[in-house]
Formats: sequence, structure tokens, C-alpha cells
Amino acid sequence: MSDREALAALRIDGDRLLGRLTELARIGDTGDGGTNRLALTDADRAGRDLVVSWMRELGLDVRIDAIGNVVGTRAGRIDGPAVMTGSHIDTVRTGGRYDGNLGVLTGLEVVETLATAGIVTDRPIEVAFFTNEEGSRFAPDMMGSLTYVGGLTVEEARDASDADGTSVGAELDRIGYAGPHPCPGPAPHAFVELHIEQGPVLEAEGFTIGAVTGVQGISWQELTITGQSNHAGTTPMSMRHDAGYAAAAIATFVREMVTDIGGHQVGTVGVTTLYPNLVNVIAASATVTVDIRNTDEAILQDAERRLAEFIAALAEREGVTITGHRRLARFEPVAFDETVISAVERWAGRFDLPTRRLPAGAGHDAQMLARVCPAGMVFVPSHRGISHNPAEHTDPADLTAGANVLLQVLLDLATIDDRVGA
Amino acid sequence: MSDREALAALRIDGDRLLGRLTELARIGDTGDGGTNRLALTDADRAGRDLVVSWMRELGLDVRIDAIGNVVGTRAGRIDGPAVMTGSHIDTVRTGGRYDGNLGVLTGLEVVETLATAGIVTDRPIEVAFFTNEEGSRFAPDMMGSLTYVGGLTVEEARDASDADGTSVGAELDRIGYAGPHPCPGPAPHAFVELHIEQGPVLEAEGFTIGAVTGVQGISWQELTITGQSNHAGTTPMSMRHDAGYAAAAIATFVREMVTDIGGHQVGTVGVTTLYPNLVNVIAASATVTVDIRNTDEAILQDAERRLAEFIAALAEREGVTITGHRRLARFEPVAFDETVISAVERWAGRFDLPTRRLPAGAGHDAQMLARVCPAGMVFVPSHRGISHNPAEHTDPADLTAGANVLLQVLLDLATIDDRVGA
Repeated sequence: MSDREALAALRIDGDRLLGRLTELARIGDTGDGGTNRLALTDADRAGRDLVVSWMRELGLDVRIDAIGNVVGTRAGRIDGPAVMTGSHIDTVRTGGRYDGNLGVLTGLEVVETLATAGIVTDRPIEVAFFTNEEGSRFAPDMMGSLTYVGGLTVEEARDASDADGTSVGAELDRIGYAGPHPCPGPAPHAFVELHIEQGPVLEAEGFTIGAVTGVQGISWQELTITGQSNHAGTTPMSMRHDAGYAAAAIATFVREMVTDIGGHQVGTVGVTTLYPNLVNVIAASATVTVDIRNTDEAILQDAERRLAEFIAALAEREGVTITGHRRLARFEPVAFDETVISAVERWAGRFDLPTRRLPAGAGHDAQMLARVCPAGMVFVPSHRGISHNPAEHTDPADLTAGANVLLQVLLDLATIDDRVGA
Repeated sequence: MSDREALAALRIDGDRLLGRLTELARIGDTGDGGTNRLALTDADRAGRDLVVSWMRELGLDVRIDAIGNVVGTRAGRIDGPAVMTGSHIDTVRTGGRYDGNLGVLTGLEVVETLATAGIVTDRPIEVAFFTNEEGSRFAPDMMGSLTYVGGLTVEEARDASDADGTSVGAELDRIGYAGPHPCPGPAPHAFVELHIEQGPVLEAEGFTIGAVTGVQGISWQELTITGQSNHAGTTPMSMRHDAGYAAAAIATFVREMVTDIGGHQVGTVGVTTLYPNLVNVIAASATVTVDIRNTDEAILQDAERRLAEFIAALAEREGVTITGHRRLARFEPVAFDETVISAVERWAGRFDLPTRRLPAGAGHDAQMLARVCPAGMVFVPSHRGISHNPAEHTDPADLTAGANVLLQVLLDLATIDDRVGA
């Protein structure tokens, strides 16, 4: 590879990157600026076909594994584990054009930048997109990357079904993306993912680059409350078993508890459904979901315990039953690799980009890859924090800035420093 | 009329009353013990036809007014205002067999009891059923009795439309119950309505008869909360505008306020609807309804004021807008006539029936008649307080007890006491 310092002057082509983002967004275009390419639909297939065609145009060696993950490899000076970048190209039903796509297409842009400059890196560079990151159609989310690292078997993943009973396996076969390569796949040398923040922090605080320290642990519960339906006028307060009140009490408790814990703790009751949901009827039953997240597993467990205690006392006091506690999702926090985090900070600093460390609040493929190799992420700002929405937007200058940071971090990781060894 | 004291031995025929209740319940039978005779449907017409046929069999003079109220009159020794009893025979979609029907059919049972005993009362006795008391299909509820007392014009009532755009007027014409008699109708001498409690108090406290003191004032509001939809993981607590939290905070405030006020105050948030109602999305908007009731208008107004202050502070604190405050319904409390309340207590006492005074938590036709004449109600227990439900049930012995109290109270009111004047 060329002299590392000389490569510091390399820059990606922001217009070319934007061009690919725009072209991919035409597939599944919802007409309002948004994109709908739910995993393993015809639109997802068309998006995959387009990205694979770009990989082949760039001379990448494309391999598709049994769960439909696609990895394009650009050979390095040596064989051995590659430095991998990438993300996903599936979207939620009302998705934007940057979520996931940015990381994959910036990977291609990095490859094209290197190819144009005639640079061969020491280690191979790989650009990957993973199947069904969003989990909107099939659970769990991050399915492809989880399977890639061996956290789920191909059989388990193929068996997952959507609301209509159609399986991942059947859809992979139908769209021709049940590939010949084995899964789990080979562990990369390192993995770095560029992604939009999907939150408001960077924009609100005036930062261009986020050096992502890890991913918050996530605890999702669904609670079903059973009370007794009665007339809102004729039932004295002392004789009520109001499932609607219990639902509200849980939501206000979550807020109080989260405020009390402070720090990175967040908590949300996003679902509240009452039955029969009539103005003059005390609710017979209710469903609420509780989403709590923290970067610290011990604090997260403590929050879960406090919530469970509150729920038990509430059920006792109100004479309702609160059951299910159905665990919708539970992930422990993930810490990214300090080498990668530092590299992101260092290069953003060299480019005079305002940078801060922050945890990711949402799940990302990088957290799965972190199980098998040093991993990290680069965040760029999301306008008003909006994501999973046609209004999702990131300033083109920020996209370019993030892509250039990714380029340099990948070059660092792909360089074998003969002075100190690899 | 015969000697009043001799009439104290008169008793209604509980089996005959139950027989009529059972026969009427066959019309609109939902197959699970319930009844569906929404106002002015074919089922309502069939129920009306049956009750009118019974009125005619009993020799009553039947008059049908312009809004479909039906009044059957049994002549008294003198002309002049009648002592009226009755209620309604329309039901909610999933109604029981006692709500409303009990009051109407007990009126017929009283008439048959008098006829069988060959008794002619001083004043005429009237048995009425009023159109659309439930308000499930057409607003407002208590439409027929409200129109009967002049609180609504016939034109306004006829113009009311159901969810499909069909008007009261069109349906009255279609089912043949737009009668020739004028509405408002003649003010009775007094009005007494027998009704199931539709609440749990009598059963829970071991009372057979409720001497109803009045009807609670009702304040219904619908509140629309607009916040900002954001990702539940990536949005710091300090940057949230969570409509779902605001909805929960209103519901828990209503409970706190009602507990603080105490006494007969009740409050219910029966409706809570979040959008988009997803586990990992901070709600963009929410709708809640607040139902608060008290027997004291000043306390009710104070509660409305406290709620409004809380809402204003909440909106400010959370950065959400809370609009609409749409007034779904507002009725001032109604006080029943002390003469009627005392008569109910006195006769229940003579029959050794455990009796307590209590306010009605729900709306009833009697509250409308109270605008034009002394009025009152007799309550009998509702098993577990359940009403508007196929499981609605009252013990046959309690039905008979309530009917005998009604009989005697009507006889009191229909008697011209020559010793002290009428």
C-alpha cells in the first residue's frame, strides 16, 4: 500500500455518493420522499439487484450467503481477514433514503475512490449488506448480521414468518437470494459502519460526527392488564378495577424512574391500547409496552427490577392482574472497540469536524459484528432526529464528511504497519 | 279510590312481570342473554309493537307523539295531570334485558295489578316509553324525554343522524312511529321511574332498594394532544415531546384529583388512543376522554377548572399542544323531589327492604321529566354492577320488591288526600 500519510489527502466524491443514494431510493419510492423496501419483498430484491450490479461494476468479488447477506470483496495486498464496512438496504414500511443505505453505498464509494486512485490496501476491503436489519416484517431485527456471526442458525432464521405466515426461507428462495456461501461467515479483521444518528443529539449540539461508543442495551416488555369493565358514572372510585388507570400509572412511573436514574437512561411507553376504549366505560383491559434502554447493563437490570416491583404493587392496589410481561426484545449493551472509536475521533479532528462520543440508541448491524471482531460506527446528524419517516434527512455536506471519515478509518484498519506489526 | 291504607296490601305479580321481560327480550336477542334493539331499528319497532299491543290489551289509551314517545293512559277518578311512570325500551348494541325495559314493563304490571283488583285511582296513571334514551345510535341520549319536556325541538331531534347518515326523522317515518300527538307533551302530576342501578353499590352494601336523590352532573371532554414522533432509543428524555406520556399524566391526574375531592366525585379516562402506537416510537399524538361527575355543580365546576389548569401546565412543561377540549356532553346535576324520595324510603321501610339514598351515576329519562314535574326513581341492585352487557342481571326477588315499591309510591301520588287537599 502507498504511504499511509499520502492517503490522508484522499477524498470521496459526494455527488457520486448522493447519485447512488438517489437511484436506490427510486426503488420502493413512496412518492413522498420515502422508501418502502420491506425485507425480502420484490422491492428489496430490486434494490439488492441494483447494489449487486454496482458491486460487480466496481470489480468486487460478490458472495451471497445462505441467509441472503451479500458481501463484495476488493482484494488487498495480502490474503486474510478483510476490513469490512456496510449496513443494510431493507427499510421500514415508511422509511427514508439514508437509514442503512448510506452505510452500504458509502462502502461502494470508498471502493470506487480507492480504485480511481489506483490504491491497493494491505488488507482486503469488504462491503456488506445484511438481510432484514429492520425487523419490520420478520423478527428478530438485525437477523442477517446476527446469523452472520452465528447468533442464530440459518434454519432458525429461515423459519421466521411474517404476519401473513410467509417465511424468510420461502421469500429468500423466491427472490433468489438464498446464496451458496455458508453462514456464519468469516470473521472480518474489523467492522466499521457509517449510519445516520436517527436521533437529535448531534444536530442539536452542533456536531457533525458522532464517534459511537456502543449500543444501548434494550429491554422491551409488553404488559397486559386485566381489570373490570364498569359504568364510569355508577361505580364508586373505591370499587373500581380500572385497567386504563393502571396503564397510565405504568407510563407515568416509567417517566419518573427514568428521570430519577438520569444519564443515558431512556424509557418510553409507545403503545397504550384500552378496551373497550369508550368515554363512559371503565376499561376492562389494556395493553402497554415499555421500552427502556441504557448503556450500562447493571443499571438496565435495576430499572427492570424497579418496574417489576411497581407493577406488582400497582396490581395489588388496584385489584387488577398484570400479566404477560412478554419479553419482546432484550439486548445487553454493546461496547465498541476503543481503537475504532479513537480512529473516528482522530480523523474527524484532522478534518476539523466537530465530533463527540455518544452511544447508539437504536440497534445496528455493527453490534452483531462486534461479537467476532473489533467494531465501531460513525454517525452523521439526522435533521430534527427524524428517521423511519419519509422526512428523514441529512445535509449532503454531513454525508460527505462522514464518508471521508469512514474512508480514512477503513484505510487505517486496512494498513499493516510494518513498524509495529499488525 | 278505595281507602289508601287498604291498598297497602296490594302486590304485583312477579312471575307475570318476569314473563313480559322475557318475552320482550326475545326481540333483538343476541343469543348470549343480551339484547340488541338500537333506537328506531326494525328490532326497536318490533319491541314497540309488542309493548303497544300489551298497552291496548290492558285497555290503556295509547298516544304516540311526533318523536315516537309512547304514553298509555289509564283513566282516573278525575281528569287532570296523570301520575306517570316508565322508561325506555331501546338498548345499546350489547344490552341486557333489564335496562329501561324494567321500568316500562313494571308500569304495565302496576296497571294490570290495579285492573285485576278493580281499583280506580284518583288521578290517571300513565305508562310511557321514551325514544332513544341510550343515544348509542343517535345523539343526544335521552332524546325522547328531552323533547317531551321541550328541551329539544322535534325538528332538531328528527335531524339527528346516525353514523351512516340516516336521520331520526327518516327512521321514525319508516317504522311508523312519527305519531300525531304534539311534543312537548303535557306535564304529568309526577313521574317515578323504576330502574336497575347499573352500578355495584346496592349489592355490595346489601341494600335492596335505592331511593334515588338525583342524577350526578356530567362533564365529558375529549382532549387531543400533539407532540412529536421520535425514536424511543435515540431521543434523550430532555428533547422529547411525548404525547403518550401527556395522555398518561392526564389520566393519573384525574385519579389524584378525584381522590382528593372525595365524596360522590368520580372520574374516568375511558379512551386513550396513541398514534402511531408502536413500541419504539414516541407517540406523535394522543386522544383521551375525561368523564367527571358530581352531584354538586360547584364541585364539578371546580374539578373542571383544576383539570384545565393541570392541562395548561402539562402542555407547557412537555412542549406539547393539548387542544380541542371538545365538550362531548355537559349536564348539571339534577335533584329529585323530596316527596318522591321520602315515599320510596317509606314504602321500602314498610316492606322491610334494606334501603339507602344514593345518586344516579348515569343519565335517565326521569332527570328530563324533573324539569316539568316532581320526579324520582327507584333503584334495584345490579349484580356486580354490570350493565350495558348481556350479563346484566337482577335477582327476581329484587325486581318484585322494586315493583311493589313503585306500585305503592304511584298509588300515593295518584291519591287525592281530601283531608289535606291535593
